[in-house]
Amino acid sequence: MIGVFDSGLGGLTALYALRHLLPSADIVYFGDTARVPYGSRSDAVIIRYAAEITEFLQEKGAERILAACGTVSAVALDTLSKSSAVPLTGVLEPACRAAVNSTKNSRIGVIATSASIASGAYDRKLLELMPGCKLTKAAAPLLVPMIENGFVARDCEMTRLAVAHYTECFRKAGIDTLILGCTHYPVIKEIFSDLLPGVTLINSSVVAAEELASVSPDRGNGTTEIYLSDANRDLEEISATLGGKLDLSAVKTHHFE
Amino acid sequence: MIGVFDSGLGGLTALYALRHLLPSADIVYFGDTARVPYGSRSDAVIIRYAAEITEFLQEKGAERILAACGTVSAVALDTLSKSSAVPLTGVLEPACRAAVNSTKNSRIGVIATSASIASGAYDRKLLELMPGCKLTKAAAPLLVPMIENGFVARDCEMTRLAVAHYTECFRKAGIDTLILGCTHYPVIKEIFSDLLPGVTLINSSVVAAEELASVSPDRGNGTTEIYLSDANRDLEEISATLGGKLDLSAVKTHHFE
Repeated sequence: MIGVFDSGLGGLTALYALRHLLPSADIVYFGDTARVPYGSRSDAVIIRYAAEITEFLQEKGAERILAACGTVSAVALDTLSKSSAVPLTGVLEPACRAAVNSTKNSRIGVIATSASIASGAYDRKLLELMPGCKLTKAAAPLLVPMIENGFVARDCEMTRLAVAHYTECFRKAGIDTLILGCTHYPVIKEIFSDLLPGVTLINSSVVAAEELASVSPDRGNGTTEIYLSDANRDLEEISATLGGKLDLSAVKTHHFE
Repeated sequence: MIGVFDSGLGGLTALYALRHLLPSADIVYFGDTARVPYGSRSDAVIIRYAAEITEFLQEKGAERILAACGTVSAVALDTLSKSSAVPLTGVLEPACRAAVNSTKNSRIGVIATSASIASGAYDRKLLELMPGCKLTKAAAPLLVPMIENGFVARDCEMTRLAVAHYTECFRKAGIDTLILGCTHYPVIKEIFSDLLPGVTLINSSVVAAEELASVSPDRGNGTTEIYLSDANRDLEEISATLGGKLDLSAVKTHHFE
């Protein structure tokens, strides 16, 4: 059984990709909707929350876990991997590999949450994979709330202003590849493309799901279990925004004491 | 001792107002920065979080507690008051009283978080205080993230677009009084005034602090204790945005297991 988790519902994009690639695998998802967002919290709190979730997923039978959350991947994965009984992978390393394979001019951008950017994890991984590459980074704390609240239309002036604000540094730096370092951002990829024409966008969830699928056997009963720490009123709407149809009757709630 | 709490740092505006009105009182503040924001969570989760905090504040010696959080005041206060050993007041009732005293045309607006608006608590209280008044409501989930991330300048185009989006219904309804139902909103009151000229703005934190100060003796050693569930990297900045200078060395952290 494969475990997948995120601070909220953004990781559903990875769940849907995995479901498609491994139709027979059993997958259990946890979304920490009672404590989302993680991206502005301290490292200590992010590590504590992620540890509780990986323990829960193992209790549910997960033999391999994907942290489908950019912030957890950047801030907590190294610490958690040391003590984890099962293999733990994140979205950061697959995204960095895809970016290095894509870039022609060695100028790569990363847009992610404040905690992810502050961690320095993208710098370390990209410089390891491609010494001499030039990295430009932007923390974009407003994009998750805008996306979760449905301001995702390609012509939404407010969201375009926010993306323009955050991507100005990438335009100046002349990047040719941009890592969308948070699992929510692919929802507004058209706005990124409009403002950064010709730049290749790396979808962290999808490349991570592809890497995981390539090493996981497609065996099992094809079950999907979804646990959330809060089943709030906007669930169905947010899930639809994120490109999937969440069967609300199949969602179970679990909260940590 | 007076306890004051909020989902995050917005309630500091009430703490600073109380500190000014009751210079000798002992005040203990709790900000749930590890789980902020509350405004998009379910009622059950908001009530659970608020119950943990009021219990903590009583352990610290609070003999009276102010929920300086619009969402808790709207969603959880009635439930918590039933079992609370100490008097518990919120920001909703004082704000409604101030609005009723201010309006000339009986057309009142409320802008607040999604959970506050969905609760129906403003409707119930305003109709009780002023039967026949006409209430117009707007849920504004993007304003807290914009304010917490410093997009608060009077000429910030993005924040102006968001406020224009949320206040369009008030303009159409011809309100003369608007309750700022979340303790963050007064930070951008100039933008509200620019877009709703002539409308009286009710600052929930300040009117609640004034009501509480009017019934509390100004006795004690004038101590201020501040507990947060997460001391994140942007603390000092956010506190400055909210109009106070937070002494970071005086902040203690406490998290619920």
